[in-house]
Amino acid sequence: MSTDDTDAREQLLDLAAQFYDQFEAGGVPSMEVPTRTKSNIEYDEDKNVWVYGDRTSTRSAKSVRGAQKLLKAVYAIEFLSRQLEEDRSSTLRELYYLSESWDLDEAQFSSQDESNQLIEDLEIVSGATREDFHMRPEESGATIMGPLELREQTRRGEREIHCQKDVGEGGYQIPNNPDTIEFLDNDADFALCVETGGMRDRLVENGFDDDYNAIIVHLKGQPARATRRITKRLHDELDLPVVVFTDGDPWSYRIYGSVAYGSIKSAHLSEYLATPEADFVGIRPQDIVEYDLPTDPLSDSDINALESELEDPRYQTEFWKEQIELQLDIEKKSEQQSLASRGLDFVTDTYLPERLTEMGVL
Amino acid sequence: MSTDDTDAREQLLDLAAQFYDQFEAGGVPSMEVPTRTKSNIEYDEDKNVWVYGDRTSTRSAKSVRGAQKLLKAVYAIEFLSRQLEEDRSSTLRELYYLSESWDLDEAQFSSQDESNQLIEDLEIVSGATREDFHMRPEESGATIMGPLELREQTRRGEREIHCQKDVGEGGYQIPNNPDTIEFLDNDADFALCVETGGMRDRLVENGFDDDYNAIIVHLKGQPARATRRITKRLHDELDLPVVVFTDGDPWSYRIYGSVAYGSIKSAHLSEYLATPEADFVGIRPQDIVEYDLPTDPLSDSDINALESELEDPRYQTEFWKEQIELQLDIEKKSEQQSLASRGLDFVTDTYLPERLTEMGVL
Repeated sequence: MSTDDTDAREQLLDLAAQFYDQFEAGGVPSMEVPTRTKSNIEYDEDKNVWVYGDRTSTRSAKSVRGAQKLLKAVYAIEFLSRQLEEDRSSTLRELYYLSESWDLDEAQFSSQDESNQLIEDLEIVSGATREDFHMRPEESGATIMGPLELREQTRRGEREIHCQKDVGEGGYQIPNNPDTIEFLDNDADFALCVETGGMRDRLVENGFDDDYNAIIVHLKGQPARATRRITKRLHDELDLPVVVFTDGDPWSYRIYGSVAYGSIKSAHLSEYLATPEADFVGIRPQDIVEYDLPTDPLSDSDINALESELEDPRYQTEFWKEQIELQLDIEKKSEQQSLASRGLDFVTDTYLPERLTEMGVL
Repeated sequence: MSTDDTDAREQLLDLAAQFYDQFEAGGVPSMEVPTRTKSNIEYDEDKNVWVYGDRTSTRSAKSVRGAQKLLKAVYAIEFLSRQLEEDRSSTLRELYYLSESWDLDEAQFSSQDESNQLIEDLEIVSGATREDFHMRPEESGATIMGPLELREQTRRGEREIHCQKDVGEGGYQIPNNPDTIEFLDNDADFALCVETGGMRDRLVENGFDDDYNAIIVHLKGQPARATRRITKRLHDELDLPVVVFTDGDPWSYRIYGSVAYGSIKSAHLSEYLATPEADFVGIRPQDIVEYDLPTDPLSDSDINALESELEDPRYQTEFWKEQIELQLDIEKKSEQQSLASRGLDFVTDTYLPERLTEMGVL
């Protein structure tokens, strides 16, 4: 086992040991976790990420329901600990199905929500992450293209891959757990996270990564944990500015928000996943006006989303207030690819160089 | 320009020349395309794929509407022909936006549906494919892992990649146009197309590709054109049996159907995309019974979909009739990953070897 795996396994076994100690002391075993309702999630103004508040809930064996929860936790800990020992991994869905093979019917999960929630509990209580337990997501699938050489520790041995020279046009596929990657060498000036596949392909075709020493990270819509994690590591370990380039609508601002500030759902992982220093390139409502981009009208749900962003602590900056109010005013949104109305090279010859210079990245 | 690009360009210019000749002969220019309603799509019993019937529609400059359609076609041909000359490419969405930069307002597309449909018209009339025109989809993203060495022609030169030794755990990312790939060498006995990411990762983790000389193609739900195209090429050029492994529900049978028989939407491309020899591994309703898999009840829409498959010419085989009737009878469906209820290795140690032996693949 690697040191990380040994650590994660010990953190899990400590939890089980804690129940044992509670029993031995004649007490009723229990486990305390932060309350995960929206009202107990706070925006940490210093760190610029979401964190849990002070309220906690107790899962205690005092009730049958609580005892069952702890039983399931112990079975899951047993499974995860063996998984780490054997250097295996599994998906959340497999864990749910796998519980059907457990010898005690009461320990089986009754729904996948239940097993998913338990894994989140274990993440929070142990301070380790799902990736540390070797739990994989169902889909990852985002890619990287740029002047970066890395070493990935795979089950079949180490692979050294240059994310331009050793990959096809599709780029380097980010593995489910990007912490198996070690950055070797790079010639990059910044990381550019791109929402849509069409725009990612445009930048690669136009050689933007080459011309501007950019590592192009494809977000693929709302980014997977693996994508957010590697983005954070590009920033923290390689000291690269991170910029996010999305469509110009409230849903895309949320994509930026989840890269930069984390999400409510994974508030316990903000320090592992969020890159608060990430900056927003566009499409800004101001770009829609300045570059006279083709637009669509805002729908009612767009307007609601914009209004709720005006209240969201993550968007309480001069920049976002101005942009969101402007958008509510012009009642229009634009896609990244609408820049093609000025020609296929406009985004790489004009728009990005102008914006990135303005932002101080170039 | 490559020979393929020159050919595609000439096929497009021939279309424009045809309008010119019609004008010169004092006629009204027109273009004939197969009618693309469901009633004009037939199942070709010999080739086992969908094809268009005999009915055609005429786009003629006799009406203002028809004249505008031809005008747009000519502008699109001009654009595509230049794109091929310059070895550029673009997405369908970029084409739509790009039309805003055309000098004649009447030539601009009024919606993306209109430009998408025009590209389909041009595919059908020219006999070339969207990929031949260098039109990219918005997303592709599926991957390959297995004993296959290939050479991809990228814009930055050739890349030789072994789809096990030169890739990370994420595998080799299939490019938007897989016809830029040349197969160099392989040690494969068959290609296994897998619906879900969770199962794809399970097979890779368990080394199934290594142990059974399998090329694992991740379908990622309903497969993209690029994924279906490379699957067909694995079959036709490398003479590999192709098997499809999905969830056990009517929607997944349609995924198999689109790999094997093509889809109604792309009936004009069946010979380019479909692999009629592809065989279905499971999850079969019979597996649900035999292996006593965890299930969910069929929903009303599942039942409707199964019933409509009973009428669908693609599923008029003994195998499908039996399986679909059995499923309607047991009123249950199962996911691929439900095999984990027998342990994480059951799928690779037992289920797949048994099924593939039964099917004559192993």
